[in-house]
Amino acid sequence: MYIAMNRFRVLNERTHDFEQMWINRESRLHEVPGFVEFHLLKGPDREDHRLYSSHTVWRSHDDFIAWTKSDAFRTAHARAGANNTQPMMAGPSEFEGFHVLQEVKADGSKKVMAAE
Amino acid sequence: MYIAMNRFRVLNERTHDFEQMWINRESRLHEVPGFVEFHLLKGPDREDHRLYSSHTVWRSHDDFIAWTKSDAFRTAHARAGANNTQPMMAGPSEFEGFHVLQEVKADGSKKVMAAE
Repeated sequence: MYIAMNRFRVLNERTHDFEQMWINRESRLHEVPGFVEFHLLKGPDREDHRLYSSHTVWRSHDDFIAWTKSDAFRTAHARAGANNTQPMMAGPSEFEGFHVLQEVKADGSKKVMAAE
Repeated sequence: MYIAMNRFRVLNERTHDFEQMWINRESRLHEVPGFVEFHLLKGPDREDHRLYSSHTVWRSHDDFIAWTKSDAFRTAHARAGANNTQPMMAGPSEFEGFHVLQEVKADGSKKVMAAE
């Protein structure tokens, strides 16, 4: 299992626009092989901006890599940049990928996973 | 839904010890009201250290706050510090809490959530 996060530093006065942009976007992620789930996360306040993060769970790192090389990825990211007419960010976004090493569920079960 | 992440910058030569410490620890998280799931995440390599993150999903922010004020929290964190005899970290850990704003599942369903 692999978690891809993109961290966004959104200017305080643009947080509403940023949230609406994500919530109203058309997403075809669920059609991509290996996609498990997506969450948009609202993080802590930081002086002139607020931290947000996209948070996508993939079955494996390979599934994530395959998606980044697909036409679907290029289409989604071309669209995302299209309505950036006013500055929305306090800096560039930052990608962080995580391999899941261990899982503990609410029933108390534990699982150790290999970082593929 | 609320995601609590603690980011750890682990010295390259201590990553094995760090992983084993987490994997072998006794966890009672599943007994805590509102706990959904826990993942230990292995992140990117960064010069002299590697980024790791604990990643705990809570039903709500209130459940998370209640846990941080509980005896269970104090016990877990007292134990975590007990075997730090050699430096393991390239710097202090960093907490980041996230409110889940939107969810997209593999069946294509979408849900917008309030950040409680």
